[in-house]
Amino acid sequence: MPRMTDRGHIIDGLALANVYREQIAARAASVTSRGGRVRLDAVLVESGDNAARVYAENQAKTCAQLGIEYRLHRIVAPAGQTPTFDDIAGRVLLLSSDDDVTAIMLHLPLPSGVDAYRVQRLIDHEKDVEGVNPANIGNIVYGRSSLAPCTALAVVKMIEHVLGVAQGAEHQPRLRGKIAVVVGAGDVVGKPIAVLLMRHEATVVSCNKFTPALAEVARTADVLIAAAGVPGLITAEMVKPGAIVIDVGVNRVKAPDGKMRTVGDVEFEAARRLAAHISPVPGGVGPMTVSMLLLNVVEAAERRYGRTDQQP
Amino acid sequence: MPRMTDRGHIIDGLALANVYREQIAARAASVTSRGGRVRLDAVLVESGDNAARVYAENQAKTCAQLGIEYRLHRIVAPAGQTPTFDDIAGRVLLLSSDDDVTAIMLHLPLPSGVDAYRVQRLIDHEKDVEGVNPANIGNIVYGRSSLAPCTALAVVKMIEHVLGVAQGAEHQPRLRGKIAVVVGAGDVVGKPIAVLLMRHEATVVSCNKFTPALAEVARTADVLIAAAGVPGLITAEMVKPGAIVIDVGVNRVKAPDGKMRTVGDVEFEAARRLAAHISPVPGGVGPMTVSMLLLNVVEAAERRYGRTDQQP
Repeated sequence: MPRMTDRGHIIDGLALANVYREQIAARAASVTSRGGRVRLDAVLVESGDNAARVYAENQAKTCAQLGIEYRLHRIVAPAGQTPTFDDIAGRVLLLSSDDDVTAIMLHLPLPSGVDAYRVQRLIDHEKDVEGVNPANIGNIVYGRSSLAPCTALAVVKMIEHVLGVAQGAEHQPRLRGKIAVVVGAGDVVGKPIAVLLMRHEATVVSCNKFTPALAEVARTADVLIAAAGVPGLITAEMVKPGAIVIDVGVNRVKAPDGKMRTVGDVEFEAARRLAAHISPVPGGVGPMTVSMLLLNVVEAAERRYGRTDQQP
Repeated sequence: MPRMTDRGHIIDGLALANVYREQIAARAASVTSRGGRVRLDAVLVESGDNAARVYAENQAKTCAQLGIEYRLHRIVAPAGQTPTFDDIAGRVLLLSSDDDVTAIMLHLPLPSGVDAYRVQRLIDHEKDVEGVNPANIGNIVYGRSSLAPCTALAVVKMIEHVLGVAQGAEHQPRLRGKIAVVVGAGDVVGKPIAVLLMRHEATVVSCNKFTPALAEVARTADVLIAAAGVPGLITAEMVKPGAIVIDVGVNRVKAPDGKMRTVGDVEFEAARRLAAHISPVPGGVGPMTVSMLLLNVVEAAERRYGRTDQQP
């Protein structure tokens, strides 16, 4: 058995998310004290999906704790009917054009047949705190200020946190000169992560299911990001000793005891013996992603009402 | 001395551009025959830059040859003054909102102090035939239909051409499973190329000036794209035998005879001994980029007026 010291440090996504929550609360209070408003307008399409409703209720509580005004816009169809694209898109457009609204999010899923992307692109890009409007990812490619997709932002902040601790380089471009391998090139998660890492001056390798000799490529990574949605894909042989491993996968699998469990894409215990730092699932990228949404909310409010303090 | 057969095939950008021109002319004629219009509205800010004016004149001639209506909008300030952001942006907005306009391009450079990016993002993304509106690159990340940036599109079409010839795989995703290394991660060229290659399911490595062991990384490339703007950066030791090498660099250097010459980023003759296919500078990506703009013009017209024929 390896000794404890042979195992990588676990990146506590919950603890780091809480650090960000304190910053968010402080920045929100600062905006409010100067007469501004920090507000999140969320659109929830009632379609019997319990998970989205529970998520919205939790979000309301979190916002209350952080001093963010939360307005939930429920879209309900007459009995026996389902809200249409027009119902949902119309509401989003209304919020986009409302001067009092600075931050919009759209709860998923939408009713079947309604293309979420067609709705998301109607969100004013300056209010798009989920970073799902294509103009926002485009602005990242072109090196301009932008609200970044929350999952990609969570990944980058976690890596920067680890690199900052390791190097004491608080104000350096921490990813510069690092090789970051992203396994998984999906449109919603993998590609945006790769783009944001490029923006941070990493050498970025975007892999997909057609990548030849994946293990060999992955082993070149100073930072290995698993975003394939395949449980157990990342084995120990893919991890360079001393690497940072960030697991973005969220997979529901049946455990040996017959119960359902949530696992990532990484064989955690095996990979941990090689990695210097590794994020767990659950408790890694997930809670950080939730905080990044609220970071974008306060960011959008500051752009509207101005900011006073230095940003971390 | 190596024998002729030891040297890579030169990718003739001019010949390939002419193949595309024939396609563009045929598609333009098809749109016109069905009562539609194929039209390019170009904005030229008069600021004494002769190169831009010459380019616009050549563009007018080319459009006439291909059956594309060309309208040049000159923005001229009163004597002794320079056109402002408002002058230029106002004209672009007017064209963006004009239903008769389907394709807009903005000649560079703009007067000093006018941020081209702030103007370009005002171009309606469906008329943005240069692919410079951030929404268009965002749509590429998210896997949606989009007008791609012309240089990136030129690179991908050249690679697909070579792979198609080599494999006879006319309707396959030709870049799938290939390792594409992009040397240079600039906002305008390098990053958009990397994004478009991801969209085409390549394994993409985005390198920048901070990449460690660049030669080693470059030698993994099935397809090596040089987009750094550094003459001679890509030496023979960076080229894997049998690779495809695409040189996007355009550098003006002083030749031994004292005259100015245009060269790429690749040490052409040395790299050619290893590469299977290699694009020259000049005569490679340059002429293809010009044709890709016009391909986007006819594409935008077809989206408006419909298309009948199969696309290549």
